[in-house]
Amino acid sequence: MLTVFGTMALDTTRTPFRTEVRILGGAATFASVSASMFTSTSMVAAIGSDMPAENLSALRAKGIDTKGVVTVQGGKTFHYDSSFDYNLSNRTTNKTELNVIADFEPVIPEEYAQSEYVYLANNDPKQNIKILQLFDHPRLIACDTIEYWIEQDRDGVVRMMEKTDIVVINDSEARLLCKEMNLARCAKKILSFGPKFAVIKKGEHGAILFSQDGQVFPASAFFLDEIVDPTGAGDSFAGGFMGHIARRGRTDFRTMKEAVIYGNVMGSFAVEDFGVKKLFAIAAEDVEERYEKYRNLVQF
Amino acid sequence: MLTVFGTMALDTTRTPFRTEVRILGGAATFASVSASMFTSTSMVAAIGSDMPAENLSALRAKGIDTKGVVTVQGGKTFHYDSSFDYNLSNRTTNKTELNVIADFEPVIPEEYAQSEYVYLANNDPKQNIKILQLFDHPRLIACDTIEYWIEQDRDGVVRMMEKTDIVVINDSEARLLCKEMNLARCAKKILSFGPKFAVIKKGEHGAILFSQDGQVFPASAFFLDEIVDPTGAGDSFAGGFMGHIARRGRTDFRTMKEAVIYGNVMGSFAVEDFGVKKLFAIAAEDVEERYEKYRNLVQF
Repeated sequence: MLTVFGTMALDTTRTPFRTEVRILGGAATFASVSASMFTSTSMVAAIGSDMPAENLSALRAKGIDTKGVVTVQGGKTFHYDSSFDYNLSNRTTNKTELNVIADFEPVIPEEYAQSEYVYLANNDPKQNIKILQLFDHPRLIACDTIEYWIEQDRDGVVRMMEKTDIVVINDSEARLLCKEMNLARCAKKILSFGPKFAVIKKGEHGAILFSQDGQVFPASAFFLDEIVDPTGAGDSFAGGFMGHIARRGRTDFRTMKEAVIYGNVMGSFAVEDFGVKKLFAIAAEDVEERYEKYRNLVQF
Repeated sequence: MLTVFGTMALDTTRTPFRTEVRILGGAATFASVSASMFTSTSMVAAIGSDMPAENLSALRAKGIDTKGVVTVQGGKTFHYDSSFDYNLSNRTTNKTELNVIADFEPVIPEEYAQSEYVYLANNDPKQNIKILQLFDHPRLIACDTIEYWIEQDRDGVVRMMEKTDIVVINDSEARLLCKEMNLARCAKKILSFGPKFAVIKKGEHGAILFSQDGQVFPASAFFLDEIVDPTGAGDSFAGGFMGHIARRGRTDFRTMKEAVIYGNVMGSFAVEDFGVKKLFAIAAEDVEERYEKYRNLVQF
């Protein structure tokens, strides 16, 4: 079982073409829906009583275990309001309301303690470190982080990474964390904290996987003519990546490379519609079909 | 035979680690040295009497035909002085002296007229259009362009592209030319000018090949831990790309994809030392070895 801990959100996403108000979002949501295509997935998150019940039903309909989703009565769900420019490449934050996630004390249902795989999405690193103590003996722990935490609590981010096996992180955040432009040097620094693998995500340019024993795997992104909403691409990448590792139960470099491609594939689906709409609409066969398409695309 | 028309320069390149003064550079130089690993290559360029004779000898030692290199007596060679920042990712121009290339009236030695392959590097588009009339019946014409010409003479750039089969261009220049952020849409626009193929170069992120019949090939860059001098990477890419096409004598999509990889390979060699030093130091076997390394690197 893979347990994903992170934010569930109600997102308002504005593009020059369309605005969607208070749609289901959040790092844990994208990662869990993606991972659920590969392996049995459970979520830990805090929501407010304003979260529409059909969102939870939709997650459960994808086979996701939402027993770890805590509803804070009278509280409000994390809300993120942002606008994209005409090119959908620059995002402006209009409003961030942490609401119930601000003081969330992580708890997990008893049966989650047996999780073999744990993915810590973009939470407060202190919450991430705390929740790890609630698992009995996870085989593999991965985390991501965001600019906000690197700026607020860099030491906490590093301490969290020390406890993980894999760090999945954006290029700009890797550079910020490592105070270093060269991504190979960023990866070396992150690996020096302890993880066996670092995956640096480069958005439309794909991702690079680095291993502690010096192996490297650069992968182009799946090529799309048009995108609709870039929100959640990186979280969907992480979900597909972890999902594939969990279903294979191995971390040999070949499996890790496949996981990067599945990550790319899930990220490419995510951006084809607003929020998690597209991820909800696809099935495992669609994922495998796009994986093969990707293979044909990059083959030479 | 492949004929390359473009600048030969004396470059002063400053990095925080080292400065090299008046070393051999220029788009035609990088492209020709790269192409010479694949096919018989001849150059057309204008230089001043300040160009050290050993630079021409070094080109001839690589088997390059330099009969088309015109020395303007008493004139000075194109000079470009630039500085890179600590990350070697941002370049500042300190000085650009066009010198003899400013009013160059293109001429070619009689035997070049039979060239089957012509590559027009970053010249004045008017000079490029003129020189094309001097060739009898080239099978394939490719061009690149730079910000300067797009800003000075966008119409000329488009007219030039109308006469070519392949456009090889940087991502930022493609965006500037097409007034469009999305690279797929940039490529469509460039292909609408007439060329059968467009290659958009993305520096450390690799390149994407687009064909007029809707095929796409995204390729990661060859992964390097460290680079020494990014100058000439794109021109070396173009040389390797054209060189492979010329030696195969085909433009089926499979050959074109291989050509993109050979382009990546030549770009990766170029940045490993200042100027053309590394390109002068390698042999055809090194190119094939790195091509296989690349194949292993990106395989999954």
